[in-house]
Amino acid sequence: MSNDRLMNSHAMAFPGPTFMQVPAGQVDDVVAGGFAIIGAPFGSAYTVPGIAPGAARAPHAIRSASARYHAFAGRYDFDLQGPFFDPAGVGLLDLGDCFGPVHDPSQHVAIIEETVRSAAVLSALPIVLGGDDSTPIPICAGLDAFTDIHVLQIDAHLDYRDNVDGHRCGYSSPMRRIREMSHVAKIVHVGARGIGSAHVSDHDDTLEAGNAIVTAREVVREGVGVALQHFPDGANVYISIDCDGFDPSVMPGTSVPLPGGLQFYDGVDMIRDLVSRCNLRGIGFAEHYPEFDNHNLTSVAITRLISNTIGATLSRRQTAKEAI
Amino acid sequence: MSNDRLMNSHAMAFPGPTFMQVPAGQVDDVVAGGFAIIGAPFGSAYTVPGIAPGAARAPHAIRSASARYHAFAGRYDFDLQGPFFDPAGVGLLDLGDCFGPVHDPSQHVAIIEETVRSAAVLSALPIVLGGDDSTPIPICAGLDAFTDIHVLQIDAHLDYRDNVDGHRCGYSSPMRRIREMSHVAKIVHVGARGIGSAHVSDHDDTLEAGNAIVTAREVVREGVGVALQHFPDGANVYISIDCDGFDPSVMPGTSVPLPGGLQFYDGVDMIRDLVSRCNLRGIGFAEHYPEFDNHNLTSVAITRLISNTIGATLSRRQTAKEAI
Amino acid sequence: MSNDRLMNSHAMAFPGPTFMQVPAGQVDDVVAGGFAIIGAPFGSAYTVPGIAPGAARAPHAIRSASARYHAFAGRYDFDLQGPFFDPAGVGLLDLGDCFGPVHDPSQHVAIIEETVRSAAVLSALPIVLGGDDSTPIPICAGLDAFTDIHVLQIDAHLDYRDNVDGHRCGYSSPMRRIREMSHVAKIVHVGARGIGSAHVSDHDDTLEAGNAIVTAREVVREGVGVALQHFPDGANVYISIDCDGFDPSVMPGTSVPLPGGLQFYDGVDMIRDLVSRCNLRGIGFAEHYPEFDNHNLTSVAITRLISNTIGATLSRRQTAKEAI
Amino acid sequence: MSNDRLMNSHAMAFPGPTFMQVPAGQVDDVVAGGFAIIGAPFGSAYTVPGIAPGAARAPHAIRSASARYHAFAGRYDFDLQGPFFDPAGVGLLDLGDCFGPVHDPSQHVAIIEETVRSAAVLSALPIVLGGDDSTPIPICAGLDAFTDIHVLQIDAHLDYRDNVDGHRCGYSSPMRRIREMSHVAKIVHVGARGIGSAHVSDHDDTLEAGNAIVTAREVVREGVGVALQHFPDGANVYISIDCDGFDPSVMPGTSVPLPGGLQFYDGVDMIRDLVSRCNLRGIGFAEHYPEFDNHNLTSVAITRLISNTIGATLSRRQTAKEAI
Amino acid sequence: MSNDRLMNSHAMAFPGPTFMQVPAGQVDDVVAGGFAIIGAPFGSAYTVPGIAPGAARAPHAIRSASARYHAFAGRYDFDLQGPFFDPAGVGLLDLGDCFGPVHDPSQHVAIIEETVRSAAVLSALPIVLGGDDSTPIPICAGLDAFTDIHVLQIDAHLDYRDNVDGHRCGYSSPMRRIREMSHVAKIVHVGARGIGSAHVSDHDDTLEAGNAIVTAREVVREGVGVALQHFPDGANVYISIDCDGFDPSVMPGTSVPLPGGLQFYDGVDMIRDLVSRCNLRGIGFAEHYPEFDNHNLTSVAITRLISNTIGATLSRRQTAKEAI
Amino acid sequence: MSNDRLMNSHAMAFPGPTFMQVPAGQVDDVVAGGFAIIGAPFGSAYTVPGIAPGAARAPHAIRSASARYHAFAGRYDFDLQGPFFDPAGVGLLDLGDCFGPVHDPSQHVAIIEETVRSAAVLSALPIVLGGDDSTPIPICAGLDAFTDIHVLQIDAHLDYRDNVDGHRCGYSSPMRRIREMSHVAKIVHVGARGIGSAHVSDHDDTLEAGNAIVTAREVVREGVGVALQHFPDGANVYISIDCDGFDPSVMPGTSVPLPGGLQFYDGVDMIRDLVSRCNLRGIGFAEHYPEFDNHNLTSVAITRLISNTIGATLSRRQTAKEAI
Repeated sequence: MSNDRLMNSHAMAFPGPTFMQVPAGQVDDVVAGGFAIIGAPFGSAYTVPGIAPGAARAPHAIRSASARYHAFAGRYDFDLQGPFFDPAGVGLLDLGDCFGPVHDPSQHVAIIEETVRSAAVLSALPIVLGGDDSTPIPICAGLDAFTDIHVLQIDAHLDYRDNVDGHRCGYSSPMRRIREMSHVAKIVHVGARGIGSAHVSDHDDTLEAGNAIVTAREVVREGVGVALQHFPDGANVYISIDCDGFDPSVMPGTSVPLPGGLQFYDGVDMIRDLVSRCNLRGIGFAEHYPEFDNHNLTSVAITRLISNTIGATLSRRQTAKEAI
Repeated sequence: MSNDRLMNSHAMAFPGPTFMQVPAGQVDDVVAGGFAIIGAPFGSAYTVPGIAPGAARAPHAIRSASARYHAFAGRYDFDLQGPFFDPAGVGLLDLGDCFGPVHDPSQHVAIIEETVRSAAVLSALPIVLGGDDSTPIPICAGLDAFTDIHVLQIDAHLDYRDNVDGHRCGYSSPMRRIREMSHVAKIVHVGARGIGSAHVSDHDDTLEAGNAIVTAREVVREGVGVALQHFPDGANVYISIDCDGFDPSVMPGTSVPLPGGLQFYDGVDMIRDLVSRCNLRGIGFAEHYPEFDNHNLTSVAITRLISNTIGATLSRRQTAKEAI
Repeated sequence: MSNDRLMNSHAMAFPGPTFMQVPAGQVDDVVAGGFAIIGAPFGSAYTVPGIAPGAARAPHAIRSASARYHAFAGRYDFDLQGPFFDPAGVGLLDLGDCFGPVHDPSQHVAIIEETVRSAAVLSALPIVLGGDDSTPIPICAGLDAFTDIHVLQIDAHLDYRDNVDGHRCGYSSPMRRIREMSHVAKIVHVGARGIGSAHVSDHDDTLEAGNAIVTAREVVREGVGVALQHFPDGANVYISIDCDGFDPSVMPGTSVPLPGGLQFYDGVDMIRDLVSRCNLRGIGFAEHYPEFDNHNLTSVAITRLISNTIGATLSRRQTAKEAI
Repeated sequence: MSNDRLMNSHAMAFPGPTFMQVPAGQVDDVVAGGFAIIGAPFGSAYTVPGIAPGAARAPHAIRSASARYHAFAGRYDFDLQGPFFDPAGVGLLDLGDCFGPVHDPSQHVAIIEETVRSAAVLSALPIVLGGDDSTPIPICAGLDAFTDIHVLQIDAHLDYRDNVDGHRCGYSSPMRRIREMSHVAKIVHVGARGIGSAHVSDHDDTLEAGNAIVTAREVVREGVGVALQHFPDGANVYISIDCDGFDPSVMPGTSVPLPGGLQFYDGVDMIRDLVSRCNLRGIGFAEHYPEFDNHNLTSVAITRLISNTIGATLSRRQTAKEAI
Repeated sequence: MSNDRLMNSHAMAFPGPTFMQVPAGQVDDVVAGGFAIIGAPFGSAYTVPGIAPGAARAPHAIRSASARYHAFAGRYDFDLQGPFFDPAGVGLLDLGDCFGPVHDPSQHVAIIEETVRSAAVLSALPIVLGGDDSTPIPICAGLDAFTDIHVLQIDAHLDYRDNVDGHRCGYSSPMRRIREMSHVAKIVHVGARGIGSAHVSDHDDTLEAGNAIVTAREVVREGVGVALQHFPDGANVYISIDCDGFDPSVMPGTSVPLPGGLQFYDGVDMIRDLVSRCNLRGIGFAEHYPEFDNHNLTSVAITRLISNTIGATLSRRQTAKEAI
Repeated sequence: MSNDRLMNSHAMAFPGPTFMQVPAGQVDDVVAGGFAIIGAPFGSAYTVPGIAPGAARAPHAIRSASARYHAFAGRYDFDLQGPFFDPAGVGLLDLGDCFGPVHDPSQHVAIIEETVRSAAVLSALPIVLGGDDSTPIPICAGLDAFTDIHVLQIDAHLDYRDNVDGHRCGYSSPMRRIREMSHVAKIVHVGARGIGSAHVSDHDDTLEAGNAIVTAREVVREGVGVALQHFPDGANVYISIDCDGFDPSVMPGTSVPLPGGLQFYDGVDMIRDLVSRCNLRGIGFAEHYPEFDNHNLTSVAITRLISNTIGATLSRRQTAKEAI
């Protein structure tokens, strides 16, 4: 598939800013070591439980909330404990939205995968703004230039069903599909609570496959260490965040908010730790439904997690350089 | 396609009442001369201008707003100037939602068409709760047991584009697709105002094809007669209502409300007149976005137009009987 | 029942202004020829169709919306075509809310009746802010110092049922109860449309009782004259307004808004005409649900109708004086 | 009072699903060891501080939020650390709403009490969806088949006033009324903070009566053990939850949310502990105002607490069986 | 004052599109015969009756609502009865927002005036997106290159007070200030209703000054001719629109919506007539409060009125050309 | 400046209650040892990032939320662990809003300063309800009767910029301006997180000036002691609270809510500790935007913090008395 299938269409669809108002770009503009924002505004044509169509609006909502940061270069960032990077000066591009023919979902999935791969092979970090529950599949597929990927899945659910009504690549199934990919070594499910998509057999299957489950309760009571211990130093890592993994007081803009989720600093700490000692290869956010958000709180939280991801990456490089 | 493809799934997806709480049924339960509620809860997997995904929620919203009427049989209906019919006693069934595989839109379109046809061939009136701009295509296709159909399209737009980005059966195009059907004789576009999807060539094409355009302004200033004159007595009629054809004070729950639209009694009058002297073969409602509605006003208005449609049909039969 | 049963409790319950910020008063403070605002903040302890509990909040909402007018004395009123009266200078008092024991609804009904009577016998105009569908019963009962009362009921429904589940003084029944009062001569139902509480027998009963029905459609198409012709000059008049009698574009804050209702000037014209040539003895507003209102539009419309009522009354007196 | 006073009326009033879509039933259908959902949709006919009328809508809101779980039997429940029970297979019935004559509140109170008693005597667990502040009184009264009941009251307030304006069974008083019942041994007030209904004398009275007060601050700082220590093993327990006992980030849908309340797992832990070592005889939820909720968060939290309650009960039985 | 005081700051303040996504420009980019969008996002630092601060957000809201039209060039416009113009091809520029030092309101007023003048002297049409009630003053002041200006003020109020608490250039006073300008010949107040800022003396003063008052009621009952008769052919015209002049069903997004206002086609007709036979020199919109809007309806209505204004102007030129 | 510049205007602008419904008063009514509520309802005339105009509505929102406490004297306050004070009996006055000429912001700033000073010199505690980011400047300036003031600033930002676009006394700068006042000894910035207004140089400057920074993360992880250690016993203290210092789950009603902020008891503890061992000279709340609030939660939290402040002050005096 040629890249001309990728349209930077968000400006037309819903006029608005790019992420942090960085330059809009095409896949060819991505630079090595850079960061590529990739919109995956797909919901479902139906209204079914768990994949309300509103997730299609998440990329626009996140970009809008992030826009004010474009002029913050050089300000002090208390999360990073140092100066905020210049969004437009660190190789951060916004590739727009992956957008295929309206009535052919299979093509947009292929476009996401290809776009992620194009960035990944350049050693640029793909940062994907979903989209519904199914977006992690093409994201992770596109990371196949790497091996032994460890997936940090922050989610209230396991998403480890084999299929839903016969469909294997839709909601509730992404983690099983990802586990089947040969370049994936392990999934660490973090934030599970209540009941959801996982059947008892799914629960057993994922453990049997060598994956790990860390419940939200364990994180709340014992800290993020219980999750981070599963990631060896130097591992290739893909972080897949479903908004319902966090507590509704942090990310209210999701389909069925469940009390008892992760707190904001839990997310910050896991990102910071993994970036500092592993190799982050991709990160994505799914299941953000702006219509349910509370004064953009979810969009702001996602923006700040992305900011932490980029800042931590830059900081690690700086440390590496200084070490020489 | 066998009817077992049709799932009465709305109860599962979003538990709620059937339309006016009449019995839920399957296509096989439809009786001659009856009325069949058919849900077509399709939006788009994307958020693109004109087809916000929220239209997928319209069937549920309309059914909920209609539910209170289930017990109103025998009450006086001032619209009908006589007793309200017993919803469960006039052959009114709710067939549920046409619901295909989540990621294969072509199938759900085929299911709508087949379901409409199944009802139509039994001389039952299909009443379709859309759904987005594209739903009129399978509805009208399913009415192919009849000939020389005259279409009353109430809409702020012509929807007469040949294609949008190559797609021929999506939004903005349904009326051109319908005009190409051999069993369709004429389209009367009513309610056009402002600018929208129609290119100048679309405007010229539809007139050249023998269709008629009646602007919203003409209706507001001169009355519905300017539209009704295009329908010969005894014609087979399909009424296709896009919520934006009405004024936002009547149907606020639409994607881009445009001031200056039709008033409620304009709709009532057109339905009453056409039912009384033509043969209504199908009616559908599209582009209702409950998230933009104003205290269910749009859902209530649609319910009442359906009630008027059924009531006028029963009244005509009664008159016919009495005339014997 | 002694007047000490009447508590001016609104300030405590929900601190806020009096109507147009006029002085708060007790029944004993009412002056002959004055105007008495009486709050009747009753909903239902249940949530049942047609009497959502939120109507209990209407008096507070109307008072709040009216408060800004307190300083408008001497300004030009384009409705009145002359100077706006000084709210605090024309004998307008706010008697607060009729408020009985929380769990004994029969007492609050008695309090309304007694309070209205206290004002009415002093030839002060009771202006009642309801409250639910049942409030017209005690209001009209309290007007028994007069005879041959003609009731103008603006309502989408007849409210002429004998009882609902055995209860005779609740919602849907007030007009029948009122018709049974010996001091009532006739009811003119204005604004009926769609279907609602009226059974066919209710419809027939009210006509047989000598009352008149003027549908919303008749007013929209033919003007308010069709309603006003039923009121002889010099008649004693009670105006009972249910918010759903008006179009939802004028009064959206009601339980089940129905398109096709009366326009604002229809209300203004009827009030102006009846005040000028009949004797207005009481006016009340029911079924306003602030939670469904649209930026206080309903509260503002009610305030302005009250302002028109008072202004027209003063104007008539002025004319009468000048005629001497 | 005969059971025919109890109407399963919610379907008519607001068409919607039963709790978790289990079968609707009558009192006679309750089975020993089962679970009975009982709606108590009462607010107040007035709008007074603390008992906004909107609580009447809580049963419908909770049932709607719970409906999606009907198909979750056999899925893994991370709260229960095992499979989710089959809602329709564990003797869970929805008895509908206790609904007396609209204007006679004394009767609906009697109906609640009788319905709770009918379930309790069968050793089925009454799970009451209130309703306002006064519903705990008839609930606890209906548990008089048991003795020495220990009440866990989760609430920001003591609700221990003798009367409010002379009314002894309304808001702010339920815990004092309950304490006066001969089958009640002790109340443990948990979650108190800020100021509210309790006078200094109420505070002193409840301590003097042998009850215990555990402030929200104590729970937040020291854990739920400070509350649980007051419950002896094997005690009969009634859990009465007022939504404002929890933090507004967990249950925002309440009348006057107060920061600093209990966290979600505090509730889960207390339920789990009491079910495992005491005998839970009834549980109820009051003061949920859906209009103030934040994307159904409160309804979802309540549903999940009920799910935990049922699950823990089943788990205890299983353990007991296995121990044999 | 040099033009470098004018900052095109809207992109920074609230990232978003320009009006209809036309190019952003500076005053120097304006071309003769073109159209200049000028943002005047000023509210008040206080919350006082009539000038809620939210009007500062109107330019952003209007621009956002208009953005979708950027790609509509060549489509059929049913208002214009011909093709829609190419927004970016008719000399339409967006000059951004007039934005002075935050705490020095006198400067932003001067900037509006100067910017309007700069456009006007080039015979480009200034189209001003306010802002509060005071913005008409600098707009009209900036039109001093013309003489004998006739002002069409669409407003529920006269705005003819001499001062409010000593301030002469704030809300309620703009029309009196405008009347004092030597290049203004007459004001036609259209849409007055209810009571508002006008004292009886203001009412008398404006009539005495030779201005005309046309109430909303006169327009609703008799048509726009009663207003248009005051404008001689060939007059220089400035149209000043306060959103509350229109009916709340057309423009709900205003501070205190008043039922009984102008309908949408009343505005369209007045613009079309004045453009066709007079010389439109400026147009502005004030008192739009997006927070009170109803799904952007007000912003859409304003956009469409601007579209009508530009279209009618182009049409007149075309007619003039063809006449040669 | 004479005190007659101070207008108690809130009642006129937005009729509503005073704080806790205590008596409204003038500066001359303040008594020694009393508490003076001072409204500073200023936003910005513009919509710029960080100072949305809506903060002008905060005083009204807080007063409304507080009103219900007026009758709570003598109830048990679980925060204070004793009886709640009688709001009207402890010298608590509401001085209304500081309100200068609409278009001259410099004057309202002067009025705040003078009003605070008038109260402070009487040893009454000024409690200021802002208002935007700039209100701390005149508050602290008005505390110049004291020396060596230690400022506790609870805020997500440092607000230590020298100027923004040349303006030195607007948003983002108040703490630097305050630091320059000769009667100020030290600022303790508490709650900083993410990035905001602070440039790296601002961060360095404030540390160099002897101020302290305590991040939100430090408070969340280590407790409030890390902040309180900077306040010597007996110090004069001014507490300046920006709502975004708290977590959005506690104070959602702010411009750009940032996850990870202070919890409610953190604020309670700091107030209690400082009141008990230092001399609190003033307290103010800024950046509360009621339009973004979540069912008044922010207003309630502020009310309760004020209640804690007053209660702790009275408690300290009582302790002091008893010690004699």
